[in-house]
Amino acid sequence: MNDTYNTRPFDHGGRAREGQTDFSANISPLGVPDAVRAVLADLAAGDELARYPDPDCGELCAAIAAREGVPAERVLCGNGAADLIYRYAAAVKPERALVLQPTFSEYEKALALTGCETEQVLLRPENGFAWTEDLLTRLTPDLDLFVFCSPNNPTGVSAPPDLLVTVLDRCAEQGIAVLWDASFLDFAETPEVYRGVMQKAWQKAQDLSVLNSFTKLYALAGLRLGYLLTLEGDRSAAMQAAGAPWTVSTAAQKAGVAALGCEDYADELRRYIATEKQFLTDGLEALGFRVLPADGDRAYVLPDANFFLLRTEREDLADTLEEHCDIVLRRAETFPGLDAHFVRIAVRTHDENTNLLNALKEVLTHG
Amino acid sequence: MNDTYNTRPFDHGGRAREGQTDFSANISPLGVPDAVRAVLADLAAGDELARYPDPDCGELCAAIAAREGVPAERVLCGNGAADLIYRYAAAVKPERALVLQPTFSEYEKALALTGCETEQVLLRPENGFAWTEDLLTRLTPDLDLFVFCSPNNPTGVSAPPDLLVTVLDRCAEQGIAVLWDASFLDFAETPEVYRGVMQKAWQKAQDLSVLNSFTKLYALAGLRLGYLLTLEGDRSAAMQAAGAPWTVSTAAQKAGVAALGCEDYADELRRYIATEKQFLTDGLEALGFRVLPADGDRAYVLPDANFFLLRTEREDLADTLEEHCDIVLRRAETFPGLDAHFVRIAVRTHDENTNLLNALKEVLTHG
Repeated sequence: MNDTYNTRPFDHGGRAREGQTDFSANISPLGVPDAVRAVLADLAAGDELARYPDPDCGELCAAIAAREGVPAERVLCGNGAADLIYRYAAAVKPERALVLQPTFSEYEKALALTGCETEQVLLRPENGFAWTEDLLTRLTPDLDLFVFCSPNNPTGVSAPPDLLVTVLDRCAEQGIAVLWDASFLDFAETPEVYRGVMQKAWQKAQDLSVLNSFTKLYALAGLRLGYLLTLEGDRSAAMQAAGAPWTVSTAAQKAGVAALGCEDYADELRRYIATEKQFLTDGLEALGFRVLPADGDRAYVLPDANFFLLRTEREDLADTLEEHCDIVLRRAETFPGLDAHFVRIAVRTHDENTNLLNALKEVLTHG
Repeated sequence: MNDTYNTRPFDHGGRAREGQTDFSANISPLGVPDAVRAVLADLAAGDELARYPDPDCGELCAAIAAREGVPAERVLCGNGAADLIYRYAAAVKPERALVLQPTFSEYEKALALTGCETEQVLLRPENGFAWTEDLLTRLTPDLDLFVFCSPNNPTGVSAPPDLLVTVLDRCAEQGIAVLWDASFLDFAETPEVYRGVMQKAWQKAQDLSVLNSFTKLYALAGLRLGYLLTLEGDRSAAMQAAGAPWTVSTAAQKAGVAALGCEDYADELRRYIATEKQFLTDGLEALGFRVLPADGDRAYVLPDANFFLLRTEREDLADTLEEHCDIVLRRAETFPGLDAHFVRIAVRTHDENTNLLNALKEVLTHG
């Protein structure tokens, strides 16, 4: 029996209250797609919610498989991407893992629960949080697993494709499984390049698992839906068995299928985010803030996601904005290697982004 | 690393196809309450699904706490009751458990995942699956946990209150934690008696955890919502940390709060089930079937839930009904101690129950 309980603080964004503008969660500012609203309204009116969900998420897995170009048995759906991280740890049971930091905190928490020891590779602000070749020396055969997020949360930086291929090859040589959180891939400039890297790894039978989410692209955080692409159906089945059945609600399954049919929504969102990301980061730089990823002494590089880090001398910035302007940023000091000088900012609607810039100007002017 | 995957067959009811009548899942035949439909329709139309759910389920925990008469910090909500079984095993980590069988299969699966050894006490059809005093001799101090379901799935039999109190006292004396799945308690004849037993155990600071579900009483199987009442808030917090955050969707949280406001629905359902249970079991006995729980040579005793076991010489009964009548029963041979002679039947609407009796008569007459 476990007589001392392990608890943990909640260290995520997305906890803004009613009436606040939430720049702390990296969610599509265009809101829930209309096609998703329609299936949810049908569900509310019909009889289907009285039945158990399909535990295999058959229709949804088939739709994801068609979109991602993998067989359906290699797709596993979960109660949000976070659920799949915990199932991965419980089913695969790695004993030693290397995690690229700073990043989403749930990987290390899930691995710790199953007794896995984790080491960290720390990406540094002075390098613009870019991957560097030093990483290769850390991929040693005593490791069971390498975990990374690309585009990375909270930095917004993607792995450089060439170095990523080299890293994956090194992992394959050393017998290291790979868990790649690609939850923000659809906000990247060239997602097809990265999808090509995944497919090549699977063609070489590499033990690569790729995580994705419906939360961000389709604004479905309240419904909980994520998926994992694996090398083989046996892995999906083992992860399915490593937790409760019926993990994905009927509402989430139907919403997921409807969302995947919304190509126009996704295209419009990507264009919108690209424009607003430029608007917002230009405005911030004009106010004298340092937007990361910066590249050494050069001008900043646009992040490859729908959010970015800001470095500020004002450690009270997030508190001040929340208190005086009802604007919520994500304080980044809970991430390894970051401190109270860093905040993460999601790209919101044009009006909201404008309000943020005005609020910041006000704060800078009047303290 | 875990090189051999553990997978498992799916061994639950509730997998009827469109167009079939599903007697295999123990769900309210009155369907989703109107108040729940209304909040789900509002969610479909509004902006809330784009936000993360409240990870603490604050409003829902408060509503459950008020109904159950426990402080809110002792309530933990989960993605269905099954999710909470897995979190319990992961957080409490018992090493030896005793499970009262035949019962819901997820307890043993969840315990096995965290390396717990389980023993079984087998309740027997010749005793009408009743608890007997023999159980007391099995509650030895080498055990960490005693798990039971009352009213029990699949037998429909409740623990006798006096013996239950004696068993709980024995567990307390021997330092054995208790996990009581009370998912069908609201279908019992005297739920208040059992709620009194729980409260007394907690007054004595007994490590009793009680599981409940919204699936059955409010026909919300498709949304996934369950809850656990614990002795202390630290246990809830540890279980919260033993898996992914945001485990309960906004849709499930809102639906749960709305459902708890539907006292009329619950009262009507209990009356309906009582009437139909009598109608259905009388009809089955008239056709010559043996409805369990039977009490020795005496006439059968009405089950204390919205389902019951049937014993039949016809091992092909479930297959025949499904093939020829689109009626799905739950074959019970996957439960320890049962075999292909047992089927579990849920109480459905009057028309559906009538159809079942007619179909059975047809099958018996024409083979």
